[in-house]
Amino acid sequence: MSRRDISSSSHARKEGWKTWEIDDNDLPQLKVNQTRLMAELHHTCQWGSGVPWKDATDPSTQTGMSRLALSDADKAARDWFVETTRSLGCDVTVDAMGNIFAVRPGSYGPKGIPTYCGSHLDTQPAGGRYDGILGVLAGVEMLRVMKEHDVETAYPVGVVNWTNEEGARFPISMVSSGVWAGEIPLERAHALKEVGGSGATMRDELERIGYLGTVPASYEAMPMAAHFELHIEQGPILEAENRRIGIVEGVQAYRWYTVEVVGREAHTGTTPFSARADALLTAARMIAYSHEIAVRKYALASTGILSLSPGSVNTVPGKVTFSLDIRAPFDKTLDDIERTLFQFDFRQIVSSEYTKGRELSFTWTVDSVSPATRFQKSCIEVAKSAAESLGKESSRNVRVMTSGAGHDSVYTSRRCPTSMIFVRCRDGVSHNPEEYASPEDCATGAEVLLQSVLRYDRLRYFKDNKSSDKPIR
Amino acid sequence: MSRRDISSSSHARKEGWKTWEIDDNDLPQLKVNQTRLMAELHHTCQWGSGVPWKDATDPSTQTGMSRLALSDADKAARDWFVETTRSLGCDVTVDAMGNIFAVRPGSYGPKGIPTYCGSHLDTQPAGGRYDGILGVLAGVEMLRVMKEHDVETAYPVGVVNWTNEEGARFPISMVSSGVWAGEIPLERAHALKEVGGSGATMRDELERIGYLGTVPASYEAMPMAAHFELHIEQGPILEAENRRIGIVEGVQAYRWYTVEVVGREAHTGTTPFSARADALLTAARMIAYSHEIAVRKYALASTGILSLSPGSVNTVPGKVTFSLDIRAPFDKTLDDIERTLFQFDFRQIVSSEYTKGRELSFTWTVDSVSPATRFQKSCIEVAKSAAESLGKESSRNVRVMTSGAGHDSVYTSRRCPTSMIFVRCRDGVSHNPEEYASPEDCATGAEVLLQSVLRYDRLRYFKDNKSSDKPIR
Repeated sequence: MSRRDISSSSHARKEGWKTWEIDDNDLPQLKVNQTRLMAELHHTCQWGSGVPWKDATDPSTQTGMSRLALSDADKAARDWFVETTRSLGCDVTVDAMGNIFAVRPGSYGPKGIPTYCGSHLDTQPAGGRYDGILGVLAGVEMLRVMKEHDVETAYPVGVVNWTNEEGARFPISMVSSGVWAGEIPLERAHALKEVGGSGATMRDELERIGYLGTVPASYEAMPMAAHFELHIEQGPILEAENRRIGIVEGVQAYRWYTVEVVGREAHTGTTPFSARADALLTAARMIAYSHEIAVRKYALASTGILSLSPGSVNTVPGKVTFSLDIRAPFDKTLDDIERTLFQFDFRQIVSSEYTKGRELSFTWTVDSVSPATRFQKSCIEVAKSAAESLGKESSRNVRVMTSGAGHDSVYTSRRCPTSMIFVRCRDGVSHNPEEYASPEDCATGAEVLLQSVLRYDRLRYFKDNKSSDKPIR
Repeated sequence: MSRRDISSSSHARKEGWKTWEIDDNDLPQLKVNQTRLMAELHHTCQWGSGVPWKDATDPSTQTGMSRLALSDADKAARDWFVETTRSLGCDVTVDAMGNIFAVRPGSYGPKGIPTYCGSHLDTQPAGGRYDGILGVLAGVEMLRVMKEHDVETAYPVGVVNWTNEEGARFPISMVSSGVWAGEIPLERAHALKEVGGSGATMRDELERIGYLGTVPASYEAMPMAAHFELHIEQGPILEAENRRIGIVEGVQAYRWYTVEVVGREAHTGTTPFSARADALLTAARMIAYSHEIAVRKYALASTGILSLSPGSVNTVPGKVTFSLDIRAPFDKTLDDIERTLFQFDFRQIVSSEYTKGRELSFTWTVDSVSPATRFQKSCIEVAKSAAESLGKESSRNVRVMTSGAGHDSVYTSRRCPTSMIFVRCRDGVSHNPEEYASPEDCATGAEVLLQSVLRYDRLRYFKDNKSSDKPIR
């Protein structure tokens, strides 16, 4: 059978680029092979296998992962990825950050810019089998389905494996997509040292495992027409709302602070409230208050670390240090919260507005800022219509949402249209050996990914052919 | 000059035991020697000298103390105490807990039960020069003044040095007055092991330094007619109210709890508030709430220790453990607070009344209970009239108060009338090398102590002579 040409649709061609509603009958009704997808996913989890679940009955699927970036296990998974994608007809390129780009040619040959999907094969030291891995394996399954049905796309289609997304071994998350996007200098990334380790740098380890490519890690050297990423949600929203697919329109902004409250140590028995400067009571009020303001502003506020001194039952703490992590879909919301908390409300709290006491002081430092990311409408709409087009999925099963966590897609969206597809994970648990997504949900997500890439390819073709018969570039 | 007989006062004798208002003209106008008192206090601080103050200009007085109970330094101070009190005409008895009783005979000879003052010569490892030491040294100064003026009391007068009041070396505070009162078994006290040390027991160390007496440590073997204790306040109330003397009518009750809150770890970015069970937010609300209820009930509530897990900026804590120390002058107040907090309010807080979220659980354990102590009216009134009788002190300078911290007087009050006299300490600071009370305040306190012992002796005489010409016993 000859390759099916999916680049012809009189209906959609009339509407052009802005038509997200592609006639489903114009697209091949391609299905992913759920059994094959899951078998292959678990097969690759032999490299870097972690601890079994507490009540594991099938350790071949119920075992966590510990596949740190650029470890021997990661090398084995990479080797499998390169070999497999080559066997499926791809050209494979490795860049200077070890990012692997597997590209399947389109009808116009290898010249067009590929439409990509991708994610990462590295895991947390006590991670699970789905975070990142599912996205890459769904890409490989996409290639298998395309080969199986001899699908012909207008432009090349690629699957990318990004290096060290977790930041667990080399301590910058998403560092290699960051270098690709031109947001993190290559030298800084190469010089990153292994956490708590031997002093080995990322460059050392790339070289050691044979993944220090010669192609520059850059959106200019390896351009992308679009980037779609399938990922587990890592949160409980889809599960709670009983929806199967999340279409991600952006990643919320977050900022991390350290707040230090300085009061005065005092004997708990002999010091009346009026003579106290209780650093812990004040910190407790700040933590409770930051929650209240986050509720009011549809944001999140969390404290995960708190330490105090001197730490004695009968001594009022003189100093407390705590972390504050605030998140919201818009940077402006965080600007507002930051200003309100640090300029006004926390000041009022240390001035002991509520009960008389001695005034305390506080200082705050910004530890990390991650601006809000808005994905591009073109990719969001394509992914959404792909999800809604699946026969078994009604639109009620699809939810447009914001990602709470960062992903490589944050960096790709700086340089090309991007969106993500989320599937449910049990109890919202991730970064945990017992992270789990059902085979059905994994397959549904992979199908939405496949359909998104096909649709995007088709829309590019429509767009290009309104003004020209040639594909872009 | 012959001994002055202070046991005759026709005015007071008419009124009998219940007359606290003794005609001041009937009492010898005895003054303590401030220079001598302070010189002797600092002299004895050569044994167990600690770290100098940060801005010390005179290290001979501006140095902290580190005189752990039954150490070589403590032995040296004890030897000085025994030698000095003997030289001032006392009989010295050491009991099985190393408590030292120095007794000066009265007019009726050594047979009457003595009226005591006393405190302790041991200190915290990083303690100051006043806590405990002032009370013993003021007793020695009392003996000096009595000898100097050849004062004759109706009954014997004693000065007691209690062993290991601090509980810093052998981990039960006030352990030796506790044994004396029959509240702590001798065997348990003797078996106490040195904190973080060699395994040496209290009995070992008493024996080693030669202070394991043969007289039983017991209120029956060594009875007291009364116990007055001069002490620094260890709190800021007198200083804040600009008063020089506190007359202590009791010691507040306290209870120590450990509260454990169990929620669920969750990603701070991907978990909406409705899906969280945030153990730290809940603990923060509990801490803030326990403060509020304490304010309403004229009590104290303090958290000095808090630990959480897992302790990562972007993970909602799944477990928090914190200490809760509540104090009030009455046991009933603590009963109320305990019931309200643990049966109702904390339950409401973990049920996420305030913002929707998953329910958490909490458990609480009682770590320590110290009931309220009420001192006896006879001693309180005597000390109060003594303070008010001092020419330079108007009654505005005297405050009746409750002690926030425990003292040996808590145990003596179980077996004999007791009260305490407090003097101001700078900023309420104690258990700190920079603990400080002015020479004037120390001398004023010592004068009130001296006058209290003299007045109590006189009142006993009045009381005994209403029904009999013999002293009690």
